Amino acid sequence: MKSAKPYIEKNKDRFIDELIELLKIPSISADSAYKKDVLKTADAVKDQLKKAGCDKVEICETPGYPIVYGEKLIDKNLPTILVYGHYDVQPPDPLNLWVNPPFEPTIKKTKTHPEGAIFARGSCDDKGQMYMHVKALEYMTETDQLPCNVKFMIEGEEEVGSSSLEWFVSKNREKLANDVILISDTGMIAPDTPSITTGLRGLSYVEVEVTGPNRDLHSGLYGGAVANPINVLTKMIASLHDEDNHITIPGFYDDVENLSKEERAKMAEAPFNLENYEKSIGINSVYGEKGYSTNERNSIRPTLDVNGIWGGYIGEGAKTVIASSAFAKISMRLVPNQDWKKITELFKNHFESIAPKGVTVKVTPHHGGQAYVTPIDSLGYKAAEKAYEETFGKTPIPQRSGGSIPIVALFEKELKSKTILMGFGLDSDAIHSPNEHFGIWNYLKGIETIPQFYHFFTEMSK
Amino acid sequence: MKSAKPYIEKNKDRFIDELIELLKIPSISADSAYKKDVLKTADAVKDQLKKAGCDKVEICETPGYPIVYGEKLIDKNLPTILVYGHYDVQPPDPLNLWVNPPFEPTIKKTKTHPEGAIFARGSCDDKGQMYMHVKALEYMTETDQLPCNVKFMIEGEEEVGSSSLEWFVSKNREKLANDVILISDTGMIAPDTPSITTGLRGLSYVEVEVTGPNRDLHSGLYGGAVANPINVLTKMIASLHDEDNHITIPGFYDDVENLSKEERAKMAEAPFNLENYEKSIGINSVYGEKGYSTNERNSIRPTLDVNGIWGGYIGEGAKTVIASSAFAKISMRLVPNQDWKKITELFKNHFESIAPKGVTVKVTPHHGGQAYVTPIDSLGYKAAEKAYEETFGKTPIPQRSGGSIPIVALFEKELKSKTILMGFGLDSDAIHSPNEHFGIWNYLKGIETIPQFYHFFTEMSK
Repeated sequence: MKSAKPYIEKNKDRFIDELIELLKIPSISADSAYKKDVLKTADAVKDQLKKAGCDKVEICETPGYPIVYGEKLIDKNLPTILVYGHYDVQPPDPLNLWVNPPFEPTIKKTKTHPEGAIFARGSCDDKGQMYMHVKALEYMTETDQLPCNVKFMIEGEEEVGSSSLEWFVSKNREKLANDVILISDTGMIAPDTPSITTGLRGLSYVEVEVTGPNRDLHSGLYGGAVANPINVLTKMIASLHDEDNHITIPGFYDDVENLSKEERAKMAEAPFNLENYEKSIGINSVYGEKGYSTNERNSIRPTLDVNGIWGGYIGEGAKTVIASSAFAKISMRLVPNQDWKKITELFKNHFESIAPKGVTVKVTPHHGGQAYVTPIDSLGYKAAEKAYEETFGKTPIPQRSGGSIPIVALFEKELKSKTILMGFGLDSDAIHSPNEHFGIWNYLKGIETIPQFYHFFTEMSK
Repeated sequence: MKSAKPYIEKNKDRFIDELIELLKIPSISADSAYKKDVLKTADAVKDQLKKAGCDKVEICETPGYPIVYGEKLIDKNLPTILVYGHYDVQPPDPLNLWVNPPFEPTIKKTKTHPEGAIFARGSCDDKGQMYMHVKALEYMTETDQLPCNVKFMIEGEEEVGSSSLEWFVSKNREKLANDVILISDTGMIAPDTPSITTGLRGLSYVEVEVTGPNRDLHSGLYGGAVANPINVLTKMIASLHDEDNHITIPGFYDDVENLSKEERAKMAEAPFNLENYEKSIGINSVYGEKGYSTNERNSIRPTLDVNGIWGGYIGEGAKTVIASSAFAKISMRLVPNQDWKKITELFKNHFESIAPKGVTVKVTPHHGGQAYVTPIDSLGYKAAEKAYEETFGKTPIPQRSGGSIPIVALFEKELKSKTILMGFGLDSDAIHSPNEHFGIWNYLKGIETIPQFYHFFTEMSK
């Protein structure tokens, strides 16, 4: 496979402009107010897949948002790569913290991205990384170098739990049949340190509601005499961690895989600078489960975080009220062997059991997914390794990520193939945060590296 | 003083219509978006005081919302009654819980109010109760029975801490000189059980902010490795009460007056039905400080309640984010001898001291006020007692209220006169809550009783 560099050099302005057009559409799957935009994005992806050389492209309806499917099958005796990505994005709030509006993409140079980065919601997660694959296909088809078959499955519900994907995959095993699944929805350790994500955490996301009196009460007349749902909720949530920051839900750790001294020692070798880490997010100290390093806490250990909390008067000024109800959104990141459905059940039972008299508690599971670990001796992993060596001149480091792509475990179960996670984003790209961005260098480097994966995977499959 | 009954009978439809007009104006002092409406309400009150017979009425500017002052001075040798009330109201949210819009007054019959009640924000607190005094004056002037001098001071910042009132009172001691202060901004035990409030709790209202990372973070990539401001906030708030629901702030109880066995026994005699109390607010059990009864918990004991909490993603669906900051509004109800400024300081120091590494904490005092207890052997109390006996045929019960009218303590300090709290609302009137209402019977009964107070107070002053 010839280097894509010259082709990219010639077309990079167009590659950037096309991505910017995609980023302008606010495809926020969590908020039904943006339904039209989510659907519009699916159509845009369909058109681009067609232009990039797919012979067949379709919008596949699901119980939720549609899945865009595309394929270019050149020879049934050649291997098939299934590319997965998503066209939906996280909600952009808090809006006031964005320097430029989240859906008005802006290119700015930063210390980490001297060639410039595209600032916009979804630029890195995942429109930008998904679109690298579309442009990589364009390169291979335009230069008649596509070495194997390729299928695309781009969904629109990843940020809300991919609830329709399981339904779709189980109904389309034949159509989606492949030899390896390729995903770019993770990060790399540093611009000069390519890495392949070998582990992902699972997820259980729930919403809780604590209700006391049947109406808001005057805090003077009733204060101290009735259970205040907000005070109660804070007590209940606080009790979910002990003083060592272990999670107190009975049975929560039962299935957690414990890594060997050797494995933990190997992990500790990955480049990591605590001072820079703290500085990059503006904290004076890290914080977490006793007995584990920062890298372990956010990769091989399960966690419980409140993602949102609300209740009572949150407007300007003061209101002396005892709220009738208080709410929180809570997510647990899980590690291999922990079953998200079992953990969700454990949480529900425990949380309801610790409610004091005077309140009622409701726990509503949102969504979840299993954790995943991929072997580093698979054909796909070896091909990815060679691809990076070709374009970065360095062997990528295998890395456990703290994030979750719940569908990876699903793919292995339903499609019986391994997933390779080739991520080109950086932790500092602020995905899920205000001012999310994606380095133009990273974007183009991805387009350059992906065709090499196609090449080596096909070669090694012979 | 002749009974006002016939006059009220003849004019009650107009009395009700006038109040409804006043209730239509959303005078929400906590929200600057309603500034025009707050000012419009002040003008409306001014006009009504004039119509009711005041010789002099004026809108007195202050650093905040204006104070409406009115007076009718008939003879400097006769006693002077100063009537205090407020024309501002609490914010109406949560709006979705209102059966009728909060500023579209609606009359409906209820079990407690067979003659009907006016449903609207401010109907009871305090537009309705304040307006009883305006109509009582109208009766006395129209029938040439006003027995003494009267002054009105109606403010527009009571629901946000009366911040301008201290400034105004200290600058106008002469103008406001009086022999007794009369306020209707409290409740009565039951429609058939008149009561006079002899004690009020003080208040300290603060807002807290816990900040961790300098931006929202992806809960997968950072979860477990950095302090989550919401989790930390819940831990900090939870720690403010121990397992017996005592408040844990060092020094918080130092100045709390401890009532004697006798006093507590006397309190216990007040009519109270726990089952009805629980049923009226839809709870299966009361909850509070160990060692005290429900009536004690919300009157003679200090309390700490979270009035609002927010942070992270509180929209529809799920967002896997670690918020940069979390917030809460917290109010403490105080009892006689506790100084609200000292308590605010104690809270601030303690709350900042319990912040873990990895977060910064900001405590912003909102406002506060001192607690108050009035003697039951004062001239004013005795006059009020006789007034109730005249119109209810019953001797009113002295009652400690859990609520706060911070300015009562201020009046005694600045104007050297006692305040008499003649309340005609009911606990079930849902003040500060959705569907606040005020019974028409209570409204008219107040208009009937107030002139009798004027009569007896003047008689007994001779």
